[in-house]
Amino acid sequence: MEKPTLPKGTRDFGPAMMARRQYIIGVIKKVFEKYGFQQLETPAMENLSTLTGKYGEEGDQLLFRILDSGDFTKLLKSKLLESNQDRLIDYLNLVREKIANVYKVSHSKSDDLIEIKKTWRTQRLFVFSGATELSQDEEQALDEFLNSDFITDLICQEIEREFFKIKGLVDPDLDWHFKQFEKEFINKLVADILRNHIVANNVKNISAQESVRFVAEKGLKYDLTVPFARYVVMNRHEVTIPFKRFQIQPVWRADRPQKGRYREFYQCDADVIGTDSLICEAEIVLMIREVMAGLGIEDFTVKVNHRGILSGLAELAEAKENESALFVAIDKLDKIGEEKVKEELISRGFLPTSIQTIFQILNFKGSNLEKIDFLNNKLGNTEKGSKGTQDMMALIEILSKFDLHADSFDLDIALARGLSYYTGGIFEVKINNVAIGSVSGGGRYDNLTGVFGSKEKLSGVGISFGLDRIYDAMEELNLFPPETDVSSEVLIAHLDEKAMSYGFTALKELRKDGISAEIYPDITKLKKQLDYANKKKIPYVVVIGEDEMKSGKLSFRNMKTGDQQSLTLDEILIQF
Amino acid sequence: MEKPTLPKGTRDFGPAMMARRQYIIGVIKKVFEKYGFQQLETPAMENLSTLTGKYGEEGDQLLFRILDSGDFTKLLKSKLLESNQDRLIDYLNLVREKIANVYKVSHSKSDDLIEIKKTWRTQRLFVFSGATELSQDEEQALDEFLNSDFITDLICQEIEREFFKIKGLVDPDLDWHFKQFEKEFINKLVADILRNHIVANNVKNISAQESVRFVAEKGLKYDLTVPFARYVVMNRHEVTIPFKRFQIQPVWRADRPQKGRYREFYQCDADVIGTDSLICEAEIVLMIREVMAGLGIEDFTVKVNHRGILSGLAELAEAKENESALFVAIDKLDKIGEEKVKEELISRGFLPTSIQTIFQILNFKGSNLEKIDFLNNKLGNTEKGSKGTQDMMALIEILSKFDLHADSFDLDIALARGLSYYTGGIFEVKINNVAIGSVSGGGRYDNLTGVFGSKEKLSGVGISFGLDRIYDAMEELNLFPPETDVSSEVLIAHLDEKAMSYGFTALKELRKDGISAEIYPDITKLKKQLDYANKKKIPYVVVIGEDEMKSGKLSFRNMKTGDQQSLTLDEILIQF
Repeated sequence: MEKPTLPKGTRDFGPAMMARRQYIIGVIKKVFEKYGFQQLETPAMENLSTLTGKYGEEGDQLLFRILDSGDFTKLLKSKLLESNQDRLIDYLNLVREKIANVYKVSHSKSDDLIEIKKTWRTQRLFVFSGATELSQDEEQALDEFLNSDFITDLICQEIEREFFKIKGLVDPDLDWHFKQFEKEFINKLVADILRNHIVANNVKNISAQESVRFVAEKGLKYDLTVPFARYVVMNRHEVTIPFKRFQIQPVWRADRPQKGRYREFYQCDADVIGTDSLICEAEIVLMIREVMAGLGIEDFTVKVNHRGILSGLAELAEAKENESALFVAIDKLDKIGEEKVKEELISRGFLPTSIQTIFQILNFKGSNLEKIDFLNNKLGNTEKGSKGTQDMMALIEILSKFDLHADSFDLDIALARGLSYYTGGIFEVKINNVAIGSVSGGGRYDNLTGVFGSKEKLSGVGISFGLDRIYDAMEELNLFPPETDVSSEVLIAHLDEKAMSYGFTALKELRKDGISAEIYPDITKLKKQLDYANKKKIPYVVVIGEDEMKSGKLSFRNMKTGDQQSLTLDEILIQF
Repeated sequence: MEKPTLPKGTRDFGPAMMARRQYIIGVIKKVFEKYGFQQLETPAMENLSTLTGKYGEEGDQLLFRILDSGDFTKLLKSKLLESNQDRLIDYLNLVREKIANVYKVSHSKSDDLIEIKKTWRTQRLFVFSGATELSQDEEQALDEFLNSDFITDLICQEIEREFFKIKGLVDPDLDWHFKQFEKEFINKLVADILRNHIVANNVKNISAQESVRFVAEKGLKYDLTVPFARYVVMNRHEVTIPFKRFQIQPVWRADRPQKGRYREFYQCDADVIGTDSLICEAEIVLMIREVMAGLGIEDFTVKVNHRGILSGLAELAEAKENESALFVAIDKLDKIGEEKVKEELISRGFLPTSIQTIFQILNFKGSNLEKIDFLNNKLGNTEKGSKGTQDMMALIEILSKFDLHADSFDLDIALARGLSYYTGGIFEVKINNVAIGSVSGGGRYDNLTGVFGSKEKLSGVGISFGLDRIYDAMEELNLFPPETDVSSEVLIAHLDEKAMSYGFTALKELRKDGISAEIYPDITKLKKQLDYANKKKIPYVVVIGEDEMKSGKLSFRNMKTGDQQSLTLDEILIQF
């Protein structure tokens, strides 16, 4: 048998990695909660109608699609049924009419429902000829079908309905009968007759590509933002506005897997929506600092910019209509350098004088306050530009109330961020001296729920932490505290059956004190038990043999130093 | 625009639900860790080859399949390529032969590689006629293809290779060239020629059902056990045996959604593998009790049985060959009652006398020790039955060391559990007085990794907690502590801009003390701010207005009682 493998771009997280990941998540989560964010979880699966069209054409390509469950051919059929709906309703109405007639005829002979039904059952004279545009084959099949036991049962229900209606009696199940009739009739009609005619022909005509799209209605979520927006739209009245939510869940992208890029990975997002207060921007800076401090990452830069400043820049360069091309180009500065960006701008129709203006501003060096002053001079007359510098100034002022000086973040005029929907402040965090991209990013957007047609404009601002990159950086900087590697605190080891049984008491008492502890479950050599402790990085082992049982003094071994003491159980318990 | 919806059988977990779910998970996780279990996470996606055949035919039907990413038609083609591999290799070899000949002919005229290549490029006399069983159409297309620019380039690479080989020169890129040639040649061959012939015909002949199966290689995981087994097989040498792992993740089943049954739901599993020590069974009972105690669930029953006892029962009833039918029938006792089970057994070929024997044993009432005594009498001579009673006795003895009396669990001879792979102790937990099925279940199995062809038999035992059912039971019993509903501890409310700014200091100091706190981010009526606190169940609100700023005494309001005190910031801080 072949050894099993993992799908490309996915990973298992074994105990050691898991403990470290949970450590990072724990720190992030604690900060989110401390700032009043509440947790949301949305399903892995979303309807494709929720996901498509939200991430651009490229994004749509990268969605993982889930096949509808059940029989594929049936599903395809039900899709075809949808498109033949009108035709089928026609059939149904004809059948109803027929039933009403039969009822009237039978009724003239008897007033007894059972009698009427019996007539129908025995006669079954249901000929459908000439009723619709059916081929002869189809017509024959339809006739056979309509005279089948199945449809006779259904029709008897319809007769009952007719009977009650005419009698003026109220049958509580009437509606149910009615719906059931309609549903089952149509299902059967499609399944048993049209299969060999309409459907089979259609299946042949549908290309493989189309047929697959037909039967995948769900996809795996691509990020946490769109499901969040969907949640807000669906639960608008239960949601407390401003809504501060955080979400820590995996997302999926059918990207080409490569080093550091996975097809399934966690995002850790926090967003506030329903307010445009700059306090939220300030809190994002504060939260980033708390997360970094909590993780022990000291040397990092919080880059901040404002889309308004970039828009002002575009206006100044007389490229207002072309601002998104400008943002895209500036976003690449880090990667491809100034010259290449200039080339790209020229190819996009920017004038050399515009480009000169742009880079004169982008390359301005100075403190944040100097930058704001400079930008005010340059962009003060542009509407969006002045809003941008005002916001940045306000941000600095709010942060000062939290004891942060004006250069606690780095106002980076050249920070653009890829996503198109940002409209205000934008953020990015880099860990200095580690060759890893940004570990966190975010920004303000104007109208989160607009993609779902919501008219109420909910402005919001969010931040996302990249778990994988933070993990890699922390490994490189050796920042995981040794405790994260520990599983149990204590292992009870034993030299024989009796000693093992004796060890249960120690185990019980340790756990009673809330200490994570375990006993080696098999009788085996001490070496193997100590190996087990070492592999699991259990820091202390209690060894029990004949001497220990006699004296009541247990061997308490520190696995790191190798020191061993003889201690009573009580003495051991106070070690923790 | 239509309002977005969720896929059937999936759920969002909003803040209130999430806090409660996290509370349950927290309790379970803490117990797992205290007992020395380490966390594992496996991807949502697994290869279908990992999943199929592990859950029976019904289970295979319930797998969610993920479409391979990329162009569906291309994928289908590559699948067909695989099945036409031999034929294509034949083509390739013929081309190679041809190249060697061309090389020799050209070589006789010149010793210069460039010259030889040039000859080939200009002449391109590559006629393929009669080489294989091709139709005339196909043959012509193939000739055209082989004389195309693309293939000429590739062939020149092959010539280069031939040249270096004959010259005895070593070209480091030779192997790469060779592989590249093979790959690109075959790809192009399929794409450009066979498409309109072989492939197109095959696509037509493949049913929709088949073609979909062709392009879904991945599925969503169905449980946590099979991915765990896969992980162990793939990481056998890194895993510390005995391996105590826990896993808390969602799983997916394409089941018909109904009340309490979802298509995406969490499982919380703990398993020990690589030991058959009964300490593990005892620890499962202990963990269940700790989890229930941690959740505040007092009235519950831990049912335990042993597959050996059931096998002994089957042997005694002379139905050894038919024991799985017996287990399946007994498993339904709770749901359908004794009479129906008896009917089922008769229809399965059990003799009335056998059935009498079986029910005489199943219906025995008494304490655990009395039951064991009774079972020893009845099943003592059956191999598996006596192993079963011995294990149960040993379990009672181990538990006694942990201060549990012999009836701390309920030895339920009629407990069978559905899953076929259990071989030893089996467990089930019911919360009494709540109309909910079992909230936890598990058992011992012999050979977890056997499904992946592993020869090493790793016995193990596991327990799984059902998050949704525990949640429902706790809601019904009103067991969630009020703290779970709290988001922030404190909201800073304010009457104007200045008061808001003044409030930043309080906010800063509260958070510095680790207290979860937030400030209302907009200037608005106090009522709206208090409403916000009430909706988010924030227990305390600090109100700041002109008086408060003047006096430095802030209004500290208890939202539950409505009490309001005037306190300095320091006095507020010591409230927590």
